[in-house]
Amino acid sequence: MAAASWSGALSKMQMLYMSDHASVVSLNLFVALLCGCIVIGHLLEENRWMNESITSLLIGLCTGVIILLTTGLKSSHLLVFSEDLFFIYLLPPIIFNAGFQVKKKQFFRNFSTIMLFGAIGTLISCTVISLGVIQFFKKTGLASLDMGDYIAIGAIFAATDSVCTLQVLNQDETPLLYSLVFGEGVVNDATSVVLFNAIQSFDLNNINHQIALQFSRNFLHLFFTSTMLGVLTGLLCAYIIKKLYFARHSTDREVALMILMSYLSYTMAEMFYLSGILTVFFCGIVMSHYAWHNVTESSRACFATLSFIAETFIFLYVGMDALDIEKWRFVSDSPGTSIAVSSILLALVLVGRAAFVFPLSFLANLGRKAPKETISFRQQVIIWWAGLMRGAVSMALAYNKFTSAGHTHLQDNAIMITSTITVVLFSTMVFGLMTKPLIRLLLPLPKHGSGAMLSGSSTPKLLSHPLLSGERDSDGELVLPDFPRPNSLTALLRTPTSTVHYYWRNFDNAFMRPVFGGRGFVPFVPGSPRV
Amino acid sequence: MAAASWSGALSKMQMLYMSDHASVVSLNLFVALLCGCIVIGHLLEENRWMNESITSLLIGLCTGVIILLTTGLKSSHLLVFSEDLFFIYLLPPIIFNAGFQVKKKQFFRNFSTIMLFGAIGTLISCTVISLGVIQFFKKTGLASLDMGDYIAIGAIFAATDSVCTLQVLNQDETPLLYSLVFGEGVVNDATSVVLFNAIQSFDLNNINHQIALQFSRNFLHLFFTSTMLGVLTGLLCAYIIKKLYFARHSTDREVALMILMSYLSYTMAEMFYLSGILTVFFCGIVMSHYAWHNVTESSRACFATLSFIAETFIFLYVGMDALDIEKWRFVSDSPGTSIAVSSILLALVLVGRAAFVFPLSFLANLGRKAPKETISFRQQVIIWWAGLMRGAVSMALAYNKFTSAGHTHLQDNAIMITSTITVVLFSTMVFGLMTKPLIRLLLPLPKHGSGAMLSGSSTPKLLSHPLLSGERDSDGELVLPDFPRPNSLTALLRTPTSTVHYYWRNFDNAFMRPVFGGRGFVPFVPGSPRV
Repeated sequence: MAAASWSGALSKMQMLYMSDHASVVSLNLFVALLCGCIVIGHLLEENRWMNESITSLLIGLCTGVIILLTTGLKSSHLLVFSEDLFFIYLLPPIIFNAGFQVKKKQFFRNFSTIMLFGAIGTLISCTVISLGVIQFFKKTGLASLDMGDYIAIGAIFAATDSVCTLQVLNQDETPLLYSLVFGEGVVNDATSVVLFNAIQSFDLNNINHQIALQFSRNFLHLFFTSTMLGVLTGLLCAYIIKKLYFARHSTDREVALMILMSYLSYTMAEMFYLSGILTVFFCGIVMSHYAWHNVTESSRACFATLSFIAETFIFLYVGMDALDIEKWRFVSDSPGTSIAVSSILLALVLVGRAAFVFPLSFLANLGRKAPKETISFRQQVIIWWAGLMRGAVSMALAYNKFTSAGHTHLQDNAIMITSTITVVLFSTMVFGLMTKPLIRLLLPLPKHGSGAMLSGSSTPKLLSHPLLSGERDSDGELVLPDFPRPNSLTALLRTPTSTVHYYWRNFDNAFMRPVFGGRGFVPFVPGSPRV
Repeated sequence: MAAASWSGALSKMQMLYMSDHASVVSLNLFVALLCGCIVIGHLLEENRWMNESITSLLIGLCTGVIILLTTGLKSSHLLVFSEDLFFIYLLPPIIFNAGFQVKKKQFFRNFSTIMLFGAIGTLISCTVISLGVIQFFKKTGLASLDMGDYIAIGAIFAATDSVCTLQVLNQDETPLLYSLVFGEGVVNDATSVVLFNAIQSFDLNNINHQIALQFSRNFLHLFFTSTMLGVLTGLLCAYIIKKLYFARHSTDREVALMILMSYLSYTMAEMFYLSGILTVFFCGIVMSHYAWHNVTESSRACFATLSFIAETFIFLYVGMDALDIEKWRFVSDSPGTSIAVSSILLALVLVGRAAFVFPLSFLANLGRKAPKETISFRQQVIIWWAGLMRGAVSMALAYNKFTSAGHTHLQDNAIMITSTITVVLFSTMVFGLMTKPLIRLLLPLPKHGSGAMLSGSSTPKLLSHPLLSGERDSDGELVLPDFPRPNSLTALLRTPTSTVHYYWRNFDNAFMRPVFGGRGFVPFVPGSPRV
């Protein structure tokens, strides 16, 4: 261990003062490319097709081509990153920031729909893709895959990329769609973890109802503990900041503590084999609810900045990684197979998502009494479309499954890897590029009547369910209008979310805010005037 | 390359879903310790002895002891970091933030003194330590070291730790001392790089005046190009932000661009074998001067937060690293030698620093005409004392020198490594602990008369050189009082800094600020009233 650390020190000093110059040059070029992505992404912002993730991806691809040509088709990498860079350093700030900035009211109002999409939907999608793969893959010549591989492929391509969603959908313009698709992506991660563990631990040749039961029990356990871990860490952080009155000194200590404690929640979740994404997302929600008001505005910018850099980094890196020549060498012998596999997978992704979005939206609409609150068909189309992107998560899962040592059929595995890259690039570029125009086509902003969708910052009048309506004050906090106490049990049965929300507000104002901080500490007075 | 990336992906997935659980646990514990450092450091803030760096160091040491005991004396590490973590990730944000927050007026007013201390002072200190080591080491039994090793030891222990200085001195309470000691630490880095290169490239048995000339030419070149690189990158960033009007969208893109471009300046400097510390420091100064006013307040908090986390990280890590049992195994055979070597080195550090602080202060005072501006003897004592700390830079240099493959005398090298650790720990803890009380003893705040030192934010009336005086407005910018144009050449000869400053202000207001941004763009009017 000391030897490792010594040689580490050595290699560093060499890098700084002597040889290993190449890695500094690479790092330098990579940072310069990141700067370029930000500037070019900014310049193209007005463009109706582009968004920043696609810009970064394209810059990554172009750089990959240039490096390929200059190195004589040897490498397309600037930096040889291991993929834990993605899971350990880049993903947590993005998801935390998403939780921190998410409109909590929208998220919790649609909680049941999000769970429906994220859990049941992912399972349906995975099943459809697995069945399709079983059906079609034998015709393409990929014969070496077994049952476990097929289900793994289903799990890999059922994993919606939350990072893409953040880039493509706008929280202010389409809050309902944003919270549904992004929320689904977060829950989706928990489902994927359970699916992956299930594939490893269960005997897949004997699928019966007992295994299904165990599976759903595992999922519920994972979901609940991950959420609680995030909530508890967030509360602890808020309590420490409020109790120790960090503001006495300076903001940087508070923000540092928030960053570190949210990161701690992520690593703790991973340590306990939970879903880190789910944990850090709820940690962000709780921190923004309580710690937020003990801290200044600057923390928001700090989180947003870190998240923005991480996002740009990911897309740039995925773009460059996709051209890695080693991965394509096996495929060059059978280009037809590779194209066929990629096309089948893309078609299955489209079908698999359609297979749950439309039926589950119908189910969700049954529970939404107010006609203004239902998910319209046009919105369903957008939900279907905006979740089609596959990203770094799919690539990491594919690497894990198809590069392990136990596999001997290198040809088939290489084709699966390159097909994954193709699906990721194609879905991000083509589906991603078409999302902005599609939203503009289906939901022209000023005319369309679906108020719930267009509420948020732009529309002053909320048309959604009356008990949940109310205006956000400047801090984005919900201020409840004067409403009578709901008639407990009957109300709970009729409008469960609203009633839960009512009691939660009372509890929040009476106990949580005084202890953990948060705006105002004002006890809820039922007859208080609307602010 | 692909294989490396694949196995990287594999190891990541294993970490997340399967085995390699230990590293997640380690990361988790480390982050938890960082949180602990912040909270405990905050609680001990009121303590008159402690500061946050010493708290982190102590927590690191305690954790090291606990890990040593629980692993049965096998390891004290939580994470096996390579030392490039320090130079590539942790140091740049700290130095950039220091440049961003430094009081520019104080820094440039004392520029010549800082250069004197940083360049000539480091050389004197290095020479004294090298000569002392040659004199005393033979008596301790370390016979295997040669001439190059002795000079290297001089360079290692002449390297003031800028990070410690930031923690120990307060910019608002003692602005003169802060700018002198910290500025010296930054210039010191450039000197160290030149010294190290010199040791490697020159024939050390034939030191003549030609080599000395080449050495000083190298130093000047390095200093000038490093500075220019930082300044140019900073200006480019300010220009981009102003021209593209990033503020139209959101703050996070601007702050991200500032972070990335300052980091780019650092890696570029390292790429061209320059001093990255010097470059990123001047990049920070320029960005705070121009880009600052195009950006909101939140960026300051963001930089301060990153810097704060990096600082805490370094001290915690150095504390844990110090107990690594492998390093101490060789020493246990000859504890006497190790103690003797450490004591000699500590004494030489004390003497070496005294050998340049007092004479060079005398020289600097000759140039400072106003009696109020001279560096008093008490201040000299503090300058001497506050620069005694040796930190991560010394440790990295020692690793480089004494763990390389060419060395066969393991015993002597091991003793040098452990002695470096001892000196670093002792100087940070003991000298660091005593700095706060020493300053309070020598310079009681309200009574003492050395105005130049106590100016800054606390004293409203500046007692320093009249032409440079003037008040800082709320943004920390210097607003010049109404003063006649200095009588060019005679004025330049008499008060060079002030005259340069006058022309610089004119140039800055007439050309630089309109192009690159910056507060107000107000052209300088000589007769304008004092704000």
